[in-house]
Amino acid sequence: MASPSLQKHSFQVFRDVPQLRQLRRQLLLSNRTVGLVPTMGALHEGHLSLIRQAAAENTDVFVSIYVNPTQFGVSEDLSSYPRTWDSDVAKLEELNTELAHQDSKNGRITAILAPTSKVMYPTLPPSSEVDGDGSFVTITPLSRKLEGASRPVFFRGVATVCMKLFNIVHADRAYFGQKDVQQTVVIKRLVKDFYIDTEIKIGDTVREHDGLAMSSRNVYLGARRRAVGLALYTALKAAEDAYIAGKVNRTEVLDAANSVAQKVLAEQQALSPAERALYEVDYISLADPDTLDELDVIDPAKGAILSSALKMAPLKESKPGEDCGLGDGQVPVRLIDNLIFKPRV
Amino acid sequence: MASPSLQKHSFQVFRDVPQLRQLRRQLLLSNRTVGLVPTMGALHEGHLSLIRQAAAENTDVFVSIYVNPTQFGVSEDLSSYPRTWDSDVAKLEELNTELAHQDSKNGRITAILAPTSKVMYPTLPPSSEVDGDGSFVTITPLSRKLEGASRPVFFRGVATVCMKLFNIVHADRAYFGQKDVQQTVVIKRLVKDFYIDTEIKIGDTVREHDGLAMSSRNVYLGARRRAVGLALYTALKAAEDAYIAGKVNRTEVLDAANSVAQKVLAEQQALSPAERALYEVDYISLADPDTLDELDVIDPAKGAILSSALKMAPLKESKPGEDCGLGDGQVPVRLIDNLIFKPRV
Repeated sequence: MASPSLQKHSFQVFRDVPQLRQLRRQLLLSNRTVGLVPTMGALHEGHLSLIRQAAAENTDVFVSIYVNPTQFGVSEDLSSYPRTWDSDVAKLEELNTELAHQDSKNGRITAILAPTSKVMYPTLPPSSEVDGDGSFVTITPLSRKLEGASRPVFFRGVATVCMKLFNIVHADRAYFGQKDVQQTVVIKRLVKDFYIDTEIKIGDTVREHDGLAMSSRNVYLGARRRAVGLALYTALKAAEDAYIAGKVNRTEVLDAANSVAQKVLAEQQALSPAERALYEVDYISLADPDTLDELDVIDPAKGAILSSALKMAPLKESKPGEDCGLGDGQVPVRLIDNLIFKPRV
Repeated sequence: MASPSLQKHSFQVFRDVPQLRQLRRQLLLSNRTVGLVPTMGALHEGHLSLIRQAAAENTDVFVSIYVNPTQFGVSEDLSSYPRTWDSDVAKLEELNTELAHQDSKNGRITAILAPTSKVMYPTLPPSSEVDGDGSFVTITPLSRKLEGASRPVFFRGVATVCMKLFNIVHADRAYFGQKDVQQTVVIKRLVKDFYIDTEIKIGDTVREHDGLAMSSRNVYLGARRRAVGLALYTALKAAEDAYIAGKVNRTEVLDAANSVAQKVLAEQQALSPAERALYEVDYISLADPDTLDELDVIDPAKGAILSSALKMAPLKESKPGEDCGLGDGQVPVRLIDNLIFKPRV
């Protein structure tokens, strides 16, 4: 199976594993270091910031672009997940130019791994069923908590595809965004329990000017839902203020977040269908940073993870000329965000 | 955590991972090759033959000795599984001497990895429950077939511990015995689906002079059950004869095996309790070499795996002075064996 290496780019594009491994071996023998940034494409500033971090810490950056079917449930948005290959490649090219001009000590994006599903799942077709057959990595009970409660196959899919990517790339370091906080906890556990020889680095959540966490799914929001969806971040910040002010009890901390979420929703419900955007809070969690067990009281020596998911409902009515986002405001959008409560000395 | 390297041996003994990884890195940088032989100890000629093969093909042989709890079901023989550290080490020393005298091109046993369960399962205690929590690798539907039908956690445990060992050792080659044929199929699938960069080599089943497949559990048989247990191999050979004679239909091939198993059992049933040894045939399978799906007809271009498991019951009565084996003939022993039907050109 040939792996077309598109020579017009400043990086090589690999669709299959053997040629990528050959490059990896050459880099190893020349004492170069590899940072892996796994993505599902639809690259935004959050991804680019991880790649910049990887380029600052490694001579070579490998970016994988693969929309992994096994982490989408059968009723989830696999088919509608944004696929934007050309603009992704353009962004990576631009970033390579930026890296070259900025600092000679920076590494560069050397390789894009954009495998087919037959490459990633060579034996059985990838199954999204909870009891589907295949070769999987499961990390429980972590995977059943928070996001996993409503997405039962999600972290099995994530852990499985990351194990494959780690084995394929043998990166010195791999980069994940803080925004998907449960994913960072699952991946750290995966690496520890299976002795994967790759250091996991977590990059800060990159936010829009007003604080909304960047996400590939934000393109579906449109202006109205986007503005209301900011309630998620505002609610988390209110709880963080409570922690900073010295509160450690679950009720006191979460009440601060809940009252923001309820207030914004009540304001929206008072508006007409053509003006409002409604949402449902899936969860607001205050959890242990390693186990994700819910906390009654924060141990100030350990800190906590405050995280939340919010489901933005489709718009019922739109106004003429309104920017309703990709899919005309009809795609339900699940937003997640989190803040790390650092230990207090 | 210190890793006591017992200097009186010709190999280093590692109880933990970091020091082993250091040795591995040194070997890599000096262009030496590593063959891994994973074992649960209780070493017999079958293991030694795998180590000899590994020494012929690598400069360094790593032997792991770890009785992996997650591959024993809650009602299985984890606690009674033979643990024979001193004699294992003595056998490995003797083998290293033999390798040194035999052929200067042979590699040597360089490292024994004998980890604690806290090292192999660093986060959660190893669970043997079907729905137990932990970080696991599952390979289905392969793991549910044959041995997996009566041992539901077995191959999950095997795949999980092998993934860890492969990641720890980064061997060039890893060696498994043909005797555990389903294990060889599961491991090959594991390596393929997860892109593990280690070549899997299968060593022929080593047999006693009369044909009984060597197994660490054979010490529990005693003379009487050992003699009767040979029916397993005899039955498989009868089916192989049928294949060699040109038979390809399931019924014709398996009838040959079944009639041997039934005849021997009937003979035993006719004897008195102090003379007989009884067994139950768990399965006799004729299966596809890659999927382990049962075959109605053998495709001569592909061949087949003929495999069987037989449960030797405890002895009801013993005679004075009789050699009843470890545990006085009271330990039920599950025997497995198989023959590979090679493709016919």
